[in-house]
Parts: sequence; structure tokens; C-alpha cells
Amino acid sequence: MALTFHRIHTTPAGGRRGRIELPHRAVQTPVFMPVGTAGSVKAVPQDILESLGAELILGNTYHLYLRPGHDAIRRMGGLHRFISWPRAMLTDSGGFQVFSLSQLRKVTDEGVRFRSHLDGSSHFFTPEHSMDVQISLGADIAMAFDECTEYPAERSRAEESLRLTMAWARRSLDHFRAHQHEVPWIHNVAPASRPAVAGASSPAPGGGITQSLFGIVQGGMYLDLRRQSAERLVEMDFDGYAIGGLSVGEPRDLTLEMIAEVLPLLPADKPRYVMGVGYPDEIEQYARMGVDMMDCVLPTRAARHGLLFTSQGRMTIKNRQYAEDQQPPDPNCNCMVCRRYTRAYLRHLMQAGEPLSATLNTIHNLAYYLGIMERVRASLAIHQAGGDRFVPEGRRENSPG
Amino acid sequence: MALTFHRIHTTPAGGRRGRIELPHRAVQTPVFMPVGTAGSVKAVPQDILESLGAELILGNTYHLYLRPGHDAIRRMGGLHRFISWPRAMLTDSGGFQVFSLSQLRKVTDEGVRFRSHLDGSSHFFTPEHSMDVQISLGADIAMAFDECTEYPAERSRAEESLRLTMAWARRSLDHFRAHQHEVPWIHNVAPASRPAVAGASSPAPGGGITQSLFGIVQGGMYLDLRRQSAERLVEMDFDGYAIGGLSVGEPRDLTLEMIAEVLPLLPADKPRYVMGVGYPDEIEQYARMGVDMMDCVLPTRAARHGLLFTSQGRMTIKNRQYAEDQQPPDPNCNCMVCRRYTRAYLRHLMQAGEPLSATLNTIHNLAYYLGIMERVRASLAIHQAGGDRFVPEGRRENSPG
Repeated sequence: MALTFHRIHTTPAGGRRGRIELPHRAVQTPVFMPVGTAGSVKAVPQDILESLGAELILGNTYHLYLRPGHDAIRRMGGLHRFISWPRAMLTDSGGFQVFSLSQLRKVTDEGVRFRSHLDGSSHFFTPEHSMDVQISLGADIAMAFDECTEYPAERSRAEESLRLTMAWARRSLDHFRAHQHEVPWIHNVAPASRPAVAGASSPAPGGGITQSLFGIVQGGMYLDLRRQSAERLVEMDFDGYAIGGLSVGEPRDLTLEMIAEVLPLLPADKPRYVMGVGYPDEIEQYARMGVDMMDCVLPTRAARHGLLFTSQGRMTIKNRQYAEDQQPPDPNCNCMVCRRYTRAYLRHLMQAGEPLSATLNTIHNLAYYLGIMERVRASLAIHQAGGDRFVPEGRRENSPG
Repeated sequence: MALTFHRIHTTPAGGRRGRIELPHRAVQTPVFMPVGTAGSVKAVPQDILESLGAELILGNTYHLYLRPGHDAIRRMGGLHRFISWPRAMLTDSGGFQVFSLSQLRKVTDEGVRFRSHLDGSSHFFTPEHSMDVQISLGADIAMAFDECTEYPAERSRAEESLRLTMAWARRSLDHFRAHQHEVPWIHNVAPASRPAVAGASSPAPGGGITQSLFGIVQGGMYLDLRRQSAERLVEMDFDGYAIGGLSVGEPRDLTLEMIAEVLPLLPADKPRYVMGVGYPDEIEQYARMGVDMMDCVLPTRAARHGLLFTSQGRMTIKNRQYAEDQQPPDPNCNCMVCRRYTRAYLRHLMQAGEPLSATLNTIHNLAYYLGIMERVRASLAIHQAGGDRFVPEGRRENSPG
């Protein structure tokens, strides 16, 4: 059995307050997923991620495949155990990084041959191989192997790319269904001896709960191709659906148009995930439209470059104006960074090249993003039972779906 | 009034279990002080330092003077407040870094002219200026401005260096006594409005507790010069005494010889600090001889290069042999890193260049160093009252000194 998705409340605008039951965590949605590229949300210890309320983090298949390798991770019990993250995880298919990071790519119907950006070694990824790698990693949610259509793309190029992605979706699903029982933790449901994974929900005895696989809607910026893609994926019956190939350089109204076109075509009773978005106002907007899951490197990557997201707008913390500013980064934020440190100190850490800079900036940005989603979840639940009474999150979880 | 030093117990070998009452903290001794060079113990958030039990950390006057500048730090209420560290701090005099890091140094009796290693700008440090800078920073303990004699040094060179250091010690002390009331927090005893410094012991109303100044014994590797240096400093009557110019490349038996020669010459009722040491076995050895305070960049710097100190010896975590090692870094360690992460994961973080690597490695190494000192303190107190009964640390604090 794959994931279970409970819709707790749906607003007239289509926004859904829900909960996804995954093997390692019941995740409150809409959810923002911090990106833990190579098995670490950069610069942030796992216990701090937990205290920030992160329930579901992302790992990049391409990076983990190259280093330390999926076979090693399988031998160590899977990704959760390897990185000591007991809550839920999602892995991408590796496709996006193969196309954006690797060298000398050669795409055929069979798959993609590419050279590692790390050492130039040659590798061949097929949908089947991506599934094997992702099953070895053992995230709660795996993604179908797809080709992310670049922007801008001619219609003929978008059509060809979509043809490939749809064929690969079918092959991904078939291979996943045939092998999903091989996930490293399915036969290992006893509580782990290391405290590393203490707190993880144990899969049901007998391994009844396993990984889920999501299909990815592509089609470039062509509405009819997007529709076609969504309809064909829905026929295949994935456990959830993602919209990919967005936030690749297109104007934002186009992003919005594609999301608005695709969402109604996806089954209401399965989670919907828009990949790689976005700015704070975007994630709020999409969540209110009915997107249940989003991920983006923006809060973490921007933090390392000194860009903070705050309730008062974006703040380039390195600016001279903050040199003696004794205010917290965001006076309206209650995160562990804003409670303790000043803008002046964060600026100094950045100026001095101190490694603590990346850690504190990232903690704040993630707190800000996760805080947005917490507020969106609260507001999406307000109209429950037709009223506008606020229901605490803990109680909403027990409401009928 | 400067610090108060309580000797709780002294062993026959001279080891002292004690407590130093400082404006921001009552510090249990012997104590190891993590180094927070530029206002941050590299890669470790302040709350984690607190949870590790760090009571007294070091800041480098040279670095903080150059960036962000002592005037800025004074305007922001002093170093404790600037970096949000409510516990005790010590600043060095700036001398060591002027001699080891800066460029185009020119030493005269008056002071040292040098160029910044950051931007080549020209600066002039005198004993009086070092005191002014350290008073602006406002650490609980300041250090006299000295010249650290290099190793090896001819006798004539060591004599000349010592002459300078002794003259500068006198000038440091005179200037410090005349200006120590100018510390940024002495007239600001009300609890700070920002939670940043909540938990700091408020100085006594009226500013009765202020900074302390330590003199520094130099003299190269010449026993008679070391004795002469100690005797002259003791005549000057500092609040505590440091032994400097050690761990500068000399063989370890020479380090030990110098410490053994100097310790008995220092007043028993004042803290004794050996600067810049050392390896785990060294800090234990010196503490048992009667050294009350030590600092060293070794645990933090080595951590960033992947060298871990463990109960089983040193571990180069990047080594291939740890690639799938599922043990904690040190199976006998109960720190937050050893409780949660494996050697394989720490190796992966280092291999992948993940910033979390420095953070986790440093936390473990500091936990190891601080743990050594905790055990040494416990063992130094065992012979209290003539018996070998173990007295818990909390109770020992209330024992007669």
C-alpha cells in the first residue's frame, strides 16, 4: 500500500488542507519541502530541521547516486538511516540534474548517457535504473524519470520531449510496481537499534506501507501538451502527480497559467506537487490554488549568499546599512535566529566569511518558508464546516477527510 | 572588583579544582576555552556551545579590532551582546596575531606598527591601545600586551623580547587600572532588552564587578628568564597569570619543563592560564599540574580538516575505511553528534564538501575536549576532605575553598 491522502478541507478556490500518510511521517499539507541535495539540507543539522517543523525533505538522486552511491546507501539501510532523518523524504528522478549539471549528454529512447560533473565518469540512466536507484535510496516518495523541457522550446521540441517523458513514465511505473518491495526498510520494520531513526513511524507490520511513485506532467509552455500529459499520466494511475518543467526562466504569469490549467485535470484525492517553486508569495499563491507540495532551493541557496526573506521583504544582510543594526533579522519572526541574533551580527559573520553565517541565514529562511505554509494551512482550514472558526492544527488532523 | 578565584581542592600534585567568579559567569576550573576568533566559534551556533557546557570562550582582539572594529562593538554594548554570548569571555591582547598574521611589522619600545592581513591598511598597537580595544570589547578577562618570543630564539633575542614584554605589562596594567571602568556594560547593569543576553549574570549594582587583567609570562625556553618574568609580573599584582610563548614549535618536554618551572612561582590564590595548548593528553596533564585555564584552536581547526579526537585515538574521518562504517564517531561519547550520526555520514559530508561537516565535526571535538576537563575536575575533587569519595560537581561548588 502506498501513501494515503486525507483532504481535511477544500476551499472554494480549490486550496486543500490535508494530510499525507507516508511510511515515515504523517505530513500536514500544503507542505514546503527543504532541499537536502546530497543528504544534507546545506549547513543545517537534522535536529534543527526537526525543531523548525520540517516534515518532508528532498534528496537528489543524481547527487546521491554519484556520491556515496545508491548501493552503499542501500547496504546502510536506506537514505533515512544513512543521514539520520527519521521523518519523510522524497527523491527526484535524477533527470533534472542529468540535464542541468552533467556533461556530454546523449539522449535516446532508451535513456540518457552522461558524464559525471564530479569526475567525468560515464553513466547511463534509464527509467528502470532511476527506479532501482530510488528504491535503494528508499525515500517515502519517488519520482518518475522525465525530461525537463527547457525554456523557451519550439513546439516540435516540446512535443518530442513530452513523447519521451510519457514513454519513460510508463516504464518508470511498471518497473517501480515490480520492484517496490525491494526498498531497504520494508522488511526491517523493527525499531532501529541506533537512536538515529528513533521517532520514525514504524511501517505497519508486514511491510504494508511502502514507497509511492509520482508521475510528472511536462509539455513546456503549451497548454494542450500540458493537458495531454496530465490526462495520460492519470490513466496510468500514479500515487500522486507533479507538475515539472516550471520555474525554468519563463515569466511568472506563464507559470501560473500552466498550473491553473493542469490542476483541475489531476485527481482530487491524490497529492499534487509543483516542482522547484518558488518565492514566498508564489508558494502561498499556489498552495491556495490547490497545490499540496512544493520544493525549492531558493530559501537555502539565497541564505548562503546573504539574502534573507522577511515579513518586511527581502534583505541583503551584507549591506553596510546593517553594520550596527541591533534589530533581529525579522522583528516579526520567532525563529531561533531572530530570537537571539542581530542583523549586525549576521552581517559581521558574512563579512568575516564565518561558516556560522550560512547556518544562521538558512535556519531563518527555512523558518520563514515553513511559517508561511503553517499560516496557509491554518487559513485553508478556517472555512471548515462552513464557518470561519479557527480550529487548532492538532484537532484538525482528526477531522473527517 | 575583579574576579574572585575559589580553590575548592588542591591535590598533592598541585592540581586545583576551583571556580572563577566572573561578571558573566562562575566558571568551573580547570577549564578549556573554545576559541571564537572573530566572534564565532567557527561553524557552531551559540546555543549548541551552551549545551556543550562551554562556560568561557575566547575572542581575538586583532581580528575583532580589524572587523567589525572595537568602536562598533562598544557602540553595540560590548562583545557579549554583539555575538549574543551571555557567558564569560576572554580576549587576547592582539599581540600574537600582530606577530603571526600581519605584514610589515615594525616594533619599537612604544609599540608595533603593522599592516592588516585583510586590506593592507596601516595600524599602530601600543599596550595602551590594546587595553582600550579590550576594554571596548568588554570581555570578562583581558590580557596584557606582550611579544610572543618565537622558537627557537637566541638568548639575546629572548632577553630583549622579555624586556619589551615586561615594560608593556607595566604599561598595560597602569592603563587598564585607569580605564577599566569604561567597559561598555559596567554602567548598564539592567537586564538587556534583547533576549540575546538574558541569562547573563548582571554585574553587581554600582559596577562592583568588572573586567580582570592577566599578565603573561614570557622568556622563551630559558628557565631563568621565565622565572624572572614570573617574579616581576607577580610584583605588579595582576588579577591572574598566563604562561605564553609555548606550543610554538618546541618539543613537548620543553613545554612541560617551562610550565613546571613557572607554576610554583605564581600566587596560589590566582588563576593560572597556559595559552594555546594543546592535544587532549596535554590539557589533562597540565590541568593535573595546577593549570586552571587553557585555550587552543586545535579541536575546532582540526575538525574542519576532518580530524576527530576520540576515546580510541585520532580519527581521519575522510578515510576510505569509514565509507560504510555505521558506528558513531566515538562509541564512548554521548555528544549530540555521536548520539545521532555515523562515521559513514560524517565521511560523506566531508567528501561532498557539505558545510554541515565542519559543524558536526567541531561539535564532537569540543564535546570531547570539554568532557576531558569535566572528568579532570571530578577527579581533582575526589581527595577533598582527605577521602576519595566522589562529590557531584554541583555540591562541590558549595564546598569551602
